[in-house]
Amino acid sequence: MHILILGAGGMIGRKLTGQLLAEGAVGARAITGLTLADIAAPPRPDTDLPVTCAAADLSDPAAAARLVAGRPDLIFHLAAIVSGEAEADFDKGYRINLGGMEALLAAIRAEGARAPYCPRLVFTSSLAVFGAPFPEVIPDDFAPAPLTSYGTQKAICELLLNDHSRRGLVDGVGIRLPTVVIRPGKPNRAASGFFSGILREPLIGEPAALPVPRETRHWFCSPRAAVGYLIHAAGMDTAPLGAQRCLSMPALSATVADEIAALERIAGPEAVRLIREVPDDGIARIVAGWPQAFDAARATALGFRGDADFDSIIRQHIADDLGGRIGPGAARG
Amino acid sequence: MHILILGAGGMIGRKLTGQLLAEGAVGARAITGLTLADIAAPPRPDTDLPVTCAAADLSDPAAAARLVAGRPDLIFHLAAIVSGEAEADFDKGYRINLGGMEALLAAIRAEGARAPYCPRLVFTSSLAVFGAPFPEVIPDDFAPAPLTSYGTQKAICELLLNDHSRRGLVDGVGIRLPTVVIRPGKPNRAASGFFSGILREPLIGEPAALPVPRETRHWFCSPRAAVGYLIHAAGMDTAPLGAQRCLSMPALSATVADEIAALERIAGPEAVRLIREVPDDGIARIVAGWPQAFDAARATALGFRGDADFDSIIRQHIADDLGGRIGPGAARG
Repeated sequence: MHILILGAGGMIGRKLTGQLLAEGAVGARAITGLTLADIAAPPRPDTDLPVTCAAADLSDPAAAARLVAGRPDLIFHLAAIVSGEAEADFDKGYRINLGGMEALLAAIRAEGARAPYCPRLVFTSSLAVFGAPFPEVIPDDFAPAPLTSYGTQKAICELLLNDHSRRGLVDGVGIRLPTVVIRPGKPNRAASGFFSGILREPLIGEPAALPVPRETRHWFCSPRAAVGYLIHAAGMDTAPLGAQRCLSMPALSATVADEIAALERIAGPEAVRLIREVPDDGIARIVAGWPQAFDAARATALGFRGDADFDSIIRQHIADDLGGRIGPGAARG
Repeated sequence: MHILILGAGGMIGRKLTGQLLAEGAVGARAITGLTLADIAAPPRPDTDLPVTCAAADLSDPAAAARLVAGRPDLIFHLAAIVSGEAEADFDKGYRINLGGMEALLAAIRAEGARAPYCPRLVFTSSLAVFGAPFPEVIPDDFAPAPLTSYGTQKAICELLLNDHSRRGLVDGVGIRLPTVVIRPGKPNRAASGFFSGILREPLIGEPAALPVPRETRHWFCSPRAAVGYLIHAAGMDTAPLGAQRCLSMPALSATVADEIAALERIAGPEAVRLIREVPDDGIARIVAGWPQAFDAARATALGFRGDADFDSIIRQHIADDLGGRIGPGAARG
């Protein structure tokens, strides 16, 4: 099967590419080629398979048509402007996050009009489709009611994916990703950044700021779990999904205190001492409006799996992003 | 205040225009002019107020910009392709029902970028944003999960209306209209047409087919109630809506048997004898997937009001559409 990954240059896209190449197949079907696209051409992975790396602005209908012209059997659509940027730049957020999906679906419909074509389309949605007030544990039938433009764009994409799937134009699965931790690399200014930062920085001997109370609870998955969701969605039987193609994922509900306790177990009290409490009411207010836990019964029954605990998330990060080394002087992932 | 009505040529649009002119004001603000637009120019109403009647395809961004260039204080957006046509013609449904809203919102944003502008925008959504399975009575927090392209388009418009209102780009209210009965005029081929037909035809001495069992229950409002919802939405304080601008309306949950009993009370058994049972499994299956009742607590608390019973709906039709006369020889509304 030929696979197209949109947003292949991002953190999840690169890890997904690596995992697909390591597995060599999706379900029983061998991978025969990859097309990797992002706003800048993604790096070429080390493989003997035919790989095309393309720079493409998905919101340009011609670019979307070119990417789909090869009739990939499986498409991962991960490309998006992040939440903060979509809120700061109305036009850009709608153009990329909604216009990109619209252009992709139009290109798939145009291919299907030429000759039968119904690719599996795995789309990364977000828990941002939900807006407060929340119950303590959010059930699968909780109504999407986004409170950001990013969440609105993702919720609209979910509706489009459902309707196109119902009509047999694509075979869609939408994955509502939890907050992914530990994000490798440098600190960023996302409101959620500290959830990664308070682990990632102390693990390499650097200080990190904690802007919220330790009892703050949120919903997490590791990069490996995120990639696992996507690959499971690519190979699953979609018949049981019926008309509702978008799923909240089983993941880990944990507090900042849980994160810190795991850090102490793995890296010792000297790592924990690198976390400084720097209360930030702005960030605390934003985070207070986020979900704390989901009862992802549908996705669990369909075979999706999340992380067991923060200890395993930290160990994964050390293995995958730090080359197995922690402490002062370890290389930043 | 200047009012723009999009879809002013349709049944609800014409009745809304008439009612606005009869009231002369919305809340405390006098109406100073009307722009009436539809795909064909709507008929000019009898009034001394300045009225512009325009033929416009709202899905053409230039047409939307022209209509909004006059900076109307209040916009009613009723223009849409009906459910059956949106299902039969994918492109046309998305172009008109979604593209029309997108073009309208873009035109409003462009006006707002020139100089502060935040019109009240009253949008007719639909109970088609909900998909089976349903509880017997659907609560306000029930998740939209449309099962048609029409419902998908309306659900997307609701999300866009919410996000634009949250950002202060418009002051939106979305009204999820129940099935409107009695629709005046000739029978049409909509799956819901018989709900009107079994009353409208016998009232003028014509036969009517009943394709579903008499215990079939559905959710109804009269044309007067529909116009009442829209005018209430135009004048209400929107602050209590918060970020969730779209409302299910309080309306009438009734069975076909309730309709027929009301017909008998008002027009006698000879009218009821004109209803022939012509079971149609196709229509019965479609209708079985429709909502039966809502608990519209939010809208009720906000002052929206539905119809009391089918007797009053029939009497209204006789007064408003039949010139007070029923029986063989009465003019069709």
